[in-house]
Amino acid sequence: MKNDTVNIGLIGFGTIGSGVVTILKQNMDLIEKKSRKKINLKKIVDLDISTPRGVDVDPEKLSTNVDDILEDEDIDIVIELIGGYLPALDFILKALNKGKHVVTANKALLAKHWDEIISAAEENQVKISFEASVGGGIPLLQPLNESLAANNIQSIYGIINGTANYILTKMTQEGLNFDSVLNEAQDKGYAEQDTTFDVEGHDTAQKLILLTILGFGKYVKEENFHVEGIRNITPEDIIFNLEERGYVIKLLGISRKTDNELEVRVHPTLIPQDHLLASVNGVFNGVYIEGDAVGPVMMYGQGAGSMPTASAVIGDCLDIINNPQKEIPFGPLKENPASLKSIENVKSKYYIRLKALDHPGVLHSIAGILSDFNISIESVSQKKLDDGPAVPIFIVTHKASENDLRSALKKIDELKDIKEKSMFIRILEE
Amino acid sequence: MKNDTVNIGLIGFGTIGSGVVTILKQNMDLIEKKSRKKINLKKIVDLDISTPRGVDVDPEKLSTNVDDILEDEDIDIVIELIGGYLPALDFILKALNKGKHVVTANKALLAKHWDEIISAAEENQVKISFEASVGGGIPLLQPLNESLAANNIQSIYGIINGTANYILTKMTQEGLNFDSVLNEAQDKGYAEQDTTFDVEGHDTAQKLILLTILGFGKYVKEENFHVEGIRNITPEDIIFNLEERGYVIKLLGISRKTDNELEVRVHPTLIPQDHLLASVNGVFNGVYIEGDAVGPVMMYGQGAGSMPTASAVIGDCLDIINNPQKEIPFGPLKENPASLKSIENVKSKYYIRLKALDHPGVLHSIAGILSDFNISIESVSQKKLDDGPAVPIFIVTHKASENDLRSALKKIDELKDIKEKSMFIRILEE
Repeated sequence: MKNDTVNIGLIGFGTIGSGVVTILKQNMDLIEKKSRKKINLKKIVDLDISTPRGVDVDPEKLSTNVDDILEDEDIDIVIELIGGYLPALDFILKALNKGKHVVTANKALLAKHWDEIISAAEENQVKISFEASVGGGIPLLQPLNESLAANNIQSIYGIINGTANYILTKMTQEGLNFDSVLNEAQDKGYAEQDTTFDVEGHDTAQKLILLTILGFGKYVKEENFHVEGIRNITPEDIIFNLEERGYVIKLLGISRKTDNELEVRVHPTLIPQDHLLASVNGVFNGVYIEGDAVGPVMMYGQGAGSMPTASAVIGDCLDIINNPQKEIPFGPLKENPASLKSIENVKSKYYIRLKALDHPGVLHSIAGILSDFNISIESVSQKKLDDGPAVPIFIVTHKASENDLRSALKKIDELKDIKEKSMFIRILEE
Repeated sequence: MKNDTVNIGLIGFGTIGSGVVTILKQNMDLIEKKSRKKINLKKIVDLDISTPRGVDVDPEKLSTNVDDILEDEDIDIVIELIGGYLPALDFILKALNKGKHVVTANKALLAKHWDEIISAAEENQVKISFEASVGGGIPLLQPLNESLAANNIQSIYGIINGTANYILTKMTQEGLNFDSVLNEAQDKGYAEQDTTFDVEGHDTAQKLILLTILGFGKYVKEENFHVEGIRNITPEDIIFNLEERGYVIKLLGISRKTDNELEVRVHPTLIPQDHLLASVNGVFNGVYIEGDAVGPVMMYGQGAGSMPTASAVIGDCLDIINNPQKEIPFGPLKENPASLKSIENVKSKYYIRLKALDHPGVLHSIAGILSDFNISIESVSQKKLDDGPAVPIFIVTHKASENDLRSALKKIDELKDIKEKSMFIRILEE
């Protein structure tokens, strides 16, 4: 920073933006002590500057015109918190091109426009920081980039969407089904009205792209890897796996090296109850990073929310102030796309659920098809029910390729005694 | 760094030192890519340079003379891994005074000589980094200093000694007593021959001092806070608490703000089974940090071992290379001693174990004394045994001050029916 005072411009006065203003008010002494500079939140821009945010702001600082930040030569750091692709991309590029450092929580934008944004930062010799974009307030990207920099990263996997984790946790703890938990969460304001992005895994996928870039230096697009959400999980899946097998279901983002390829995938995953991730409940996030030297480490905390996310935003501002020349370890990655292992070639153990008529011979036919595809069965459980002739069957397999599993299930689903098509959940490899 | 090549001198070619050499060999490409410099491990000094370390080293790099590093003007970074107070202190001070950056894992030295070492670094405008000194390879100090810098830290508590945690985990999982686990661990080489430092809490205390300095900016000496080890824990304590109460016993270091004071203490602590720290088992470490903005975060990983600790050492070297001007947020602290809350004034819930003759009226007397000191009982359990007239009694109290508890237990221990004096374990406040 050129001067003793650092001027900050905030674009987006929503949930996280209000948190930023609150922390800057509340902890300014501490923050200035750590930055050895005066910090001045000079301007806050939002389309709506009249609705009260629960924090006092000098009205002169408020504006609806983004150029009051982007064109102000005194502003050193721009915090972008409006989210989405446009106009956020324009604002960020303009700020970088004006020689301003940028802090953002915008995972969607970074995941999609990585090279464009990073190149603009490099060309203008300014920084773009985005700790808040993955895992909210959890120190995650900085440790991955810096503390663990001596490691060849082997794998990164974790729970990085709080809404999906909240729903699965409630389903597990209270035996409720997906829809009733979701409705309750929406009524109480814990979940957005449109949760497609969270429950179908896209939010997890975007964050996983950023973790993959930083962990492996490889670029990957969402359309090139498997992304599957949690809508098909039923209470009976949860109960069977927990009570009979000691496994819990979590929505994981997984990115890991195998042979010379990267496996990148998002899907519900069965995790042994004594694995630390199995205890990451509610809106909390937890991410495992495995390095060749350090072994496994895990970071845990609140992956969303006004104050936790704002904590990461201000942490980034302090990092820029204290280390303005520090660079992101990987620059533009156009030349460095990941060589991806297709999900069909990934090997895993599986839990399978299907519903079949309770005839002698059904299990025999199913086992035969699985065997034809070289899939061995670890256990089979068939529940007697009072409500009809079809019974749910739960199968746990030994390790098999997903290609074989899908082919086998396709054949099984064609059996005449099958009354409800199969679904399966992958089991975390240990 | 002045030149394109960074020269490193390593003092101490033991377990961690060998790990450093191994990682530098194995991951040099990656490390040089991240530092944008050539890295040259120029000299390794140890008293013993003949015993094979399982990693190839050019014999010309080896020396028994520490001045080959300290007096070499080309060496930029000195890694100190000999541990202990002397001569490590002399080596570190000399390196700093010669204008060299220092990386160390020496928690004992830093905890005792903080001001002297930090002042020398500040005067010479060089850095002293010590991520490896607490929690081995776990990113802990850097996140605390940087990612969480916007937070007023409320509390730091965790499992930061792997040996003690290994012993407690084995006792819990296999129902063994302290001595047999310790003997087995020593036989297998998992624990040092002298584990006093680990099992009596001193190692935890030294690490806690560093966490307290970085988290709260306050200096505290071990003799001024309560440090208690795990020798008195019995299998019956573990079984009662786990089976009847759902609590596990962990050796915790705790540092937290209450009112305007700091509570700093090391002792075995009862933790609810569903708390994440309860699942930190074996040699793993886990540390909770609670900030006013971020809420609780936890970092988890291997707190010791050659490669994990070396990962942190090299991470520190990279941080120095990439950010040589970055300063430790708190400098010398002589003027800033912590105002400590005495353990007697700390309030907690307690588990109490004692042994008494199985007479009618014993429980009545005990309950009467507890009540005289305003301690209410949450539950009492008395076990019938076949091996004599004395029976173990387990009591769980509601919240009370430790002063009251100690006074009450002193009186209880004087009752004529008491056959084995009371012991108590504090229960983690939630």
